[in-house]
Amino acid sequence: MTASAKPAASSSAPQYKVLGTRPIRHDGTDKVTGRAIYAADLHLPGMAYGRVIRSPHAHARIRSIDFSAALALPGVLAVTSAADMPDLKNKFADLGEGRVNLAHLGANCLAQGKVLYRGHAVAAVAAVSPHVAEEAAKLVRIEYEPLPAVTWVLDAMKPNAPLLHDDVFTESMGQLSDKPSNVSRHIHFEQGDVQRGFAQADVVIEREYRTASVHQGYIEPHACTALWNQDGHVTIWTATQGSFSCRQQVAELLELPVSRVTVVPCEIGGGFGGKIPIYLEPVAVLLSRKCGRPVKLTMTRSDVFEGTGPTPGSFVRVKLGATRDGKLVAGEAWLAYDAGAFPGGMIGPGCMCVFSCYEIPHARVDGYDVCLNKPKTAAYRAPGATQAAFACESVIDELAERLNIDPIEFRLKNAAKEGTRRVDGPVYPRIGLVEVLEAARASEHWNTPLAGPWRGRGVAAGYWFNIGLKSSASASVNADGTVTLVEGSTDIGGTRTSVAMQLAETLGIAAEDVRPQVADTDSVGYTDVTGGSRVTFATGLAAYQVGLDIRRQMAERAALLWECDPALVRFEDGVFRTDGRSITFKELAAKLHATGGPVVGRAAVDPEGPTHGFGAHIVDVEVDPDTGKVTILRYTAVQDAGKAVHPSYVEGQMQGGTVQGIGWALNEEYWFDDRGQMRNASFLDYRMPTALDVPMIETIIVEVPNPDHPYGVRGVGETPIVPPPAALANAIYRATGVRLRELPMSPPRVWAALAAAGKSS
Amino acid sequence: MTASAKPAASSSAPQYKVLGTRPIRHDGTDKVTGRAIYAADLHLPGMAYGRVIRSPHAHARIRSIDFSAALALPGVLAVTSAADMPDLKNKFADLGEGRVNLAHLGANCLAQGKVLYRGHAVAAVAAVSPHVAEEAAKLVRIEYEPLPAVTWVLDAMKPNAPLLHDDVFTESMGQLSDKPSNVSRHIHFEQGDVQRGFAQADVVIEREYRTASVHQGYIEPHACTALWNQDGHVTIWTATQGSFSCRQQVAELLELPVSRVTVVPCEIGGGFGGKIPIYLEPVAVLLSRKCGRPVKLTMTRSDVFEGTGPTPGSFVRVKLGATRDGKLVAGEAWLAYDAGAFPGGMIGPGCMCVFSCYEIPHARVDGYDVCLNKPKTAAYRAPGATQAAFACESVIDELAERLNIDPIEFRLKNAAKEGTRRVDGPVYPRIGLVEVLEAARASEHWNTPLAGPWRGRGVAAGYWFNIGLKSSASASVNADGTVTLVEGSTDIGGTRTSVAMQLAETLGIAAEDVRPQVADTDSVGYTDVTGGSRVTFATGLAAYQVGLDIRRQMAERAALLWECDPALVRFEDGVFRTDGRSITFKELAAKLHATGGPVVGRAAVDPEGPTHGFGAHIVDVEVDPDTGKVTILRYTAVQDAGKAVHPSYVEGQMQGGTVQGIGWALNEEYWFDDRGQMRNASFLDYRMPTALDVPMIETIIVEVPNPDHPYGVRGVGETPIVPPPAALANAIYRATGVRLRELPMSPPRVWAALAAAGKSS
Repeated sequence: MTASAKPAASSSAPQYKVLGTRPIRHDGTDKVTGRAIYAADLHLPGMAYGRVIRSPHAHARIRSIDFSAALALPGVLAVTSAADMPDLKNKFADLGEGRVNLAHLGANCLAQGKVLYRGHAVAAVAAVSPHVAEEAAKLVRIEYEPLPAVTWVLDAMKPNAPLLHDDVFTESMGQLSDKPSNVSRHIHFEQGDVQRGFAQADVVIEREYRTASVHQGYIEPHACTALWNQDGHVTIWTATQGSFSCRQQVAELLELPVSRVTVVPCEIGGGFGGKIPIYLEPVAVLLSRKCGRPVKLTMTRSDVFEGTGPTPGSFVRVKLGATRDGKLVAGEAWLAYDAGAFPGGMIGPGCMCVFSCYEIPHARVDGYDVCLNKPKTAAYRAPGATQAAFACESVIDELAERLNIDPIEFRLKNAAKEGTRRVDGPVYPRIGLVEVLEAARASEHWNTPLAGPWRGRGVAAGYWFNIGLKSSASASVNADGTVTLVEGSTDIGGTRTSVAMQLAETLGIAAEDVRPQVADTDSVGYTDVTGGSRVTFATGLAAYQVGLDIRRQMAERAALLWECDPALVRFEDGVFRTDGRSITFKELAAKLHATGGPVVGRAAVDPEGPTHGFGAHIVDVEVDPDTGKVTILRYTAVQDAGKAVHPSYVEGQMQGGTVQGIGWALNEEYWFDDRGQMRNASFLDYRMPTALDVPMIETIIVEVPNPDHPYGVRGVGETPIVPPPAALANAIYRATGVRLRELPMSPPRVWAALAAAGKSS
Repeated sequence: MTASAKPAASSSAPQYKVLGTRPIRHDGTDKVTGRAIYAADLHLPGMAYGRVIRSPHAHARIRSIDFSAALALPGVLAVTSAADMPDLKNKFADLGEGRVNLAHLGANCLAQGKVLYRGHAVAAVAAVSPHVAEEAAKLVRIEYEPLPAVTWVLDAMKPNAPLLHDDVFTESMGQLSDKPSNVSRHIHFEQGDVQRGFAQADVVIEREYRTASVHQGYIEPHACTALWNQDGHVTIWTATQGSFSCRQQVAELLELPVSRVTVVPCEIGGGFGGKIPIYLEPVAVLLSRKCGRPVKLTMTRSDVFEGTGPTPGSFVRVKLGATRDGKLVAGEAWLAYDAGAFPGGMIGPGCMCVFSCYEIPHARVDGYDVCLNKPKTAAYRAPGATQAAFACESVIDELAERLNIDPIEFRLKNAAKEGTRRVDGPVYPRIGLVEVLEAARASEHWNTPLAGPWRGRGVAAGYWFNIGLKSSASASVNADGTVTLVEGSTDIGGTRTSVAMQLAETLGIAAEDVRPQVADTDSVGYTDVTGGSRVTFATGLAAYQVGLDIRRQMAERAALLWECDPALVRFEDGVFRTDGRSITFKELAAKLHATGGPVVGRAAVDPEGPTHGFGAHIVDVEVDPDTGKVTILRYTAVQDAGKAVHPSYVEGQMQGGTVQGIGWALNEEYWFDDRGQMRNASFLDYRMPTALDVPMIETIIVEVPNPDHPYGVRGVGETPIVPPPAALANAIYRATGVRLRELPMSPPRVWAALAAAGKSS
C-alpha cells in the first residue's frame, strides 16, 4: 500500500508529463526472462577458470607459498600471488573520494606477507576448467604462522591489542602518532560550547550502543573475467557499481595507464556499496597475463561473506541535553567503527550523520577508524549512518519520553531545516525533514491506535547526505522520433529508466521513446560509481543537459526549415514553435536528415551535491516474551524524494532499504568464534529477512524539490536503511519497557534483556 | 615499392604531426590473433541455427511450399517464407540513396510468387543444430513451374525477352512506359550540341564493349544472428557495411519503427559494396520471432555467388571525336547495365562516370537499367564506373594512337579540371587529375623503356566521385590524456585508425592516444554506410568536429585555472596558451576532474561530397601467344588522395582495388549455362587473382587537398578499381596489335582474338 503526501508547495509545483509516472523499466524483459548477461554468465572462447585460495586464519604471517604441486597438475595454466603485483609501498591515488593507500588496496586483493582475516585472498590458480582449478587450489601449499586476532572494535583499540599493520599510525588533528596503531584516524567535529550547552540542559541522557558487522547480502556473488590481450590492453567484464572506478583501481594497482584498461560492466545483481571495491579483478588480470587467455573468477557465498566488505561493527556513545520545554541544547558523540583489516572505514559519514537531523547549538563528535581482523569494510547503503542513528534516535526517544513530549513533536521541535549548521560544518539549504515529520504525524498509521499486550510503536528519523559527482551521457535522435541514450552509470535499481525519464521529460517525448544503454569505459565519458544515491540525481542531470543540447540543435533545424532566426524558436510541451508555425519533436526528428544530418547531444556534469535525504519511520511490533522474537505488525516509511521521478522505484528503494535495516536490527550479524573465524558464512546461518519475515512496507513520498536540480530530484536509495534499528528499538521499548542498545536485537538477546528486567516468561 | 609525389603546392602545405604517419592499426592485434569477433563467431545461449532454401531455377513460378515434413523432423523450431512478410506492395522508402521499392527488397530476401534467379532465397528453417537445419531444408517440398530465363543484358532488352516483373515499367524523361518491361529506367544526359561537335571532329572513333558479371569476392561469407526478444525488440548481430542502413532496411521490411531494431555490427571480412544490401537479416528475424530464440544464418561460398549481388554485366558503346591537334570535341555513350533480378542497378554512376575524366564540350549519354535472371546487383567498388571506363579509356587510347599523340599527353590535353562541367551537370571544384597524369608521366615506370616481343605498356585514367553523407561521433577525455572515440562507421579498411588520426591531429596527441570504438545503433548517432569512399572523409570530419568541441571545452577549463577569459586561450601544437601561461593537453586532461568534471565531445555531420578521386594506371604486360595468357610485368597506380591520412592504407586501397580490377579484366566472370545456371560458383572455378598472379603494385600518392575538408582529405577506396581493365586492354593492344573489347580478357578469349587476327601461334 502506498500513499503520496502532498508536496510542500503543491500549488506552485511544476506539471510534468513523464516524471512521476510509472513506465515499465527498459531492461525489465531481459531480466525477467533471464536474457540479461551477468558477469558469471559470460563465456568467451578459450576461457580459463580461476580459483582464489583464501586464508584459513584470522591473522597470520605467510611463511611460504609453494605452487609446484599445483603447477604439475595437468590443465593448470597459471598461478599468482602478491609476488606478481608491483611494489606499491608508499603509493597513493585519489580514487574519486580521497587518497587511497595502494599498498593496502593491493594487499586486500592478494595478501602481502600477512593475512589479516579469515577469507583473505592469498593466491590464485587458473586452469582449463573450474574443476581442475578447484583441485589445483587444494595443491597450493601455504605455510602460515598464526598470530593472535582481534574482532571487536573496542578490543582492537586497547594498547595491548594484536597489531595488524606496522605502517598505520593514528592521524588526529593533522598529527600522526609516534607508534603504529590499529587506530588509523581520529575525527573531531565541534560547534558552540558543549560544556555551556550541557549546563543549560534540564535533562541529559548518555547511553552506549553496540552494533555487529552485517553484510550487504546482494543476491549475486562477485564474478569477473579479465583478458590481458596480446597488445597489452586489458579488458575486464565484471559486476561493479562503477566501471570507471574499477578501471582506475585496477590501473593503479597494476601500474597501467587508465586507457590500457577497458571495463565492461555486466548486469549487476545488487551492490549496496559492496561492489565499489575491487577484489577479483586484479587477480584475474594477473592470471590472464600469465596464460594469455581470458580468465574468469567467481566467488561462492562463503567467499562473499568472508572475503568482501561488510559494514563496520561499532561502538557509539551519545549524550544529549535538552531544556524542559523540549529544545535540544547540547550533544556529544563518541564513535568507534571498525574498518576491517585495512584503514579507511565508514567513520567519517558516521560522524557527519550522528546529529544531522537536529539543530543542536552546542555539539561535539569524536570518531575513530579502527583496524581489526575482519574483512575490510565496504560501503553499505548510507555507510556509517545507521549505527549512528541507532544511538542518536534511541537517546532522542528517551529524552522525549522523559520530557513527556510526543516523539514526533519532539523531533519537529528540534528538526534541522534550511539554515541549520551541521556539527561538521555545512549549512543546510532547503531540506524536507519538517515536511517528512509532518507527513508521518498526519499519516493514517500514526493516527491508528495500537492496542494489545507486548505491543509497541516506535518512531525514528534518519538522514543520508547523498552525493553528486561526475556523470557523462550522450544521446542521438532517431528518424522515428525516439532517442537512444548512452550513460556510464551501471544500473542497479532501475536508473536506466529514471535517467531516461528525465531526458524524455526534457524533450517532451514518452519514457518508452528513450532507449537507454549502459556503456563500457571506452564508449561513454567518465562517470563515477553508482552509489551515494547519486545516479538519478547526477546522471539524471546529465540526461537533462543532453536534452537541452539536443533541443538547441533541433531548434536550429526548425529555424532552417522556417528560414528564421533560431533565437525565435521556442520549445514548449514537446513542440518547437515560432510565431504562427509549429512542429513536434517527432515531426522534426523525421526531417533531420534533410536539414543537415543527425543530431547528437552530450553532457558531462559534476554537480555539487549533497542532495540531503531525510526520512522518518513508524513501526508497530509485538514481542513474544517466551522467545524474544519481535514480530513487525505494521511499518511505514516516510521520505523526502525531492521529486519522485519513478515513484515505484522510490517506493522500492524505501521498502528495500527498510527491510535491510530490519535485518540489521533484528537478526543479521557476523558471528565470530574466539579464533576470529566467522561461523555463519552462509545464507542458511546468516539470517537475512525474507518476504515471510516482514509485512508490506508502507511508503509515503514527500516532495520538497531540491533547489540544485532542474526537476528537484534528491537521492533516495540510502536514507531508508537508517531509521529501522532505532525505530525498532524504540518500538520494543514501548512494547516491553526494556531498552535494547545492542544489535542485532535477536530473539536470544531480547529474551535475555527481558529476563534481566524480570519480564520474560 | 612506394613513392610519394610532391604535393601540388608543397611550399604552402600544412605541417601535420599525425596525418601522413603510419601508426599500427588499433584493431590489428585482435585481427591477427583471431580474437576479433566476426558475425559467424557469435555464440549466444539457446541459439538456433537456420538454413535458407534457394531456388534451383533461374526463373520459375512457385506453385507451393510444403513445410510439413520439415516441421515433423525432431529439432526443427521454425520455418518461414514470404508468406510471413508484411504486404509491401506499392510501399517505398528512402534508404539514404533515393526511393527504394520495398516489395522488391523484400522479395529479394524471400521470393514472392516467383523465383528470379538461381540461388534466390525461397524459404528457411531453424533448428537446434546446423545439421538438423540442413536435413530439414531438404525436407521442404517446393513445387516450381520453370519459366524461360535471360542472363545477357541486350537479350533482356529485346521485346520478346522473358519478362521478369509485371510491375516494372520503363521510366524515361519522367514518363512511364505503357507496358511492363525489363528495362526499368532510361537515363539521358546531354550538354552542348553533339551533332555540331562531331562535325568539328577530324577523327571519330566508335566502339562497343561488353563486360561479364563479377563478384566482390570478399573473404567472409554473409552471416548474421537475430533475436526477436520477448518485449518485441529486435537485435541483429551481422556483417554489414552500414549498421544504420541495415537497421532501416529490416525495420521497413518488417514494418517496425527503427527504434525497435538494434544492429550490432560485428567485424567484417570485406564488403566492397556487397554488404550494403540485406539478405539474411529479415529471414533470421522472422525465424527468431517464431521460435523465441536467437537464430543464426550463414552463407556458403556458393550462396554468396548465387544469392548476393555481383556487379552488372554491361554493354557500352562509346563514340568520341577529336580535332587533329588532339582536342576532344564530342562524345556519345550508350550504356546498358543489368540490374539483376530487380530494378535499381548501377547505371546511374556508370553514366556519370563514362566521360568524367575529360572536358568534352558536346556530349550525350544514354543509359539503361535492365532486369534479368541474375542475382540483384550490388555496389562493387566504384559501382558502374569500371565498365564505363573500360569503354571510354579504350577509345581514348585509339584516338591518341590515331592522332599519334602520347596517351598521357592526350589525356592531359583534355583532362577535366577546376571549372569543367561534367555531362551530368556538376562543375568540378579543385581536382587533381592533371597532377595525377603529370605524376604518371614523371614516374620512373613511365620513363623506363619496355623491350621485348609480345610486350606492351598500357595506360588508363579513372574516376570515382566519392560521397559525403552522414556521420556521427562522440569522444571523451581520460585523465591520462588519452581519448576514447565512438563512431558509427563499420571498419573495413582501417578507418578506426584513419578517423582516430584526425581526432589526434586536432587535439595534438598521438594516434595511439585515441582509442576508437565502432558502436551499435543504440550507442552512437546515425551514420551512413561504410561505402562510397566516405568514411575517412566524412567520419573523419566528424572526428575533427568532435576535436574542436573538446578543445573548446578544454580551453574553458584552462581559463578557469588561469582565471581568465576563455576567449584568450589559444590552442597551438597540443598546448593551450594564454599570455605567459601554457598547459599541454595531457596536463590539462589530468585536471578535468578538479575543474568541473569530465569532458565529452560530440559531432554529427552531413558534408556535401563528392570528393572527386582521380587516378591513372600504367601497366606492362607480356602476352603468351600460345595460350593467350596475359602476364603482368609491372603495374603502377597513381592517385590523388587529397591528403593521405595513413599512407599505408591509401596504398593498400590502391593495391587492393587494382588487383580486383585486374581480376575483373583478365579472369573473373559469372559463367552461365543456357538454363541461366551459374556453373562456376566456387573459388576454385571462379578464378580470382592471388598473390601469385600479380606483381607488387607500385603506388604514387598525389596530394591535391580537397577544399571541402579541413585536412584536404578525399576518398581513396574505389578509384583504383576503375582503370585496370582499360589499362590492360591498351597494354595488350600494344603487345599484340589486337584490341580486346570484352571482359574478361581471359586466355581463351585473348587466344581467340589473336587467332582471328592471324597472330596466335
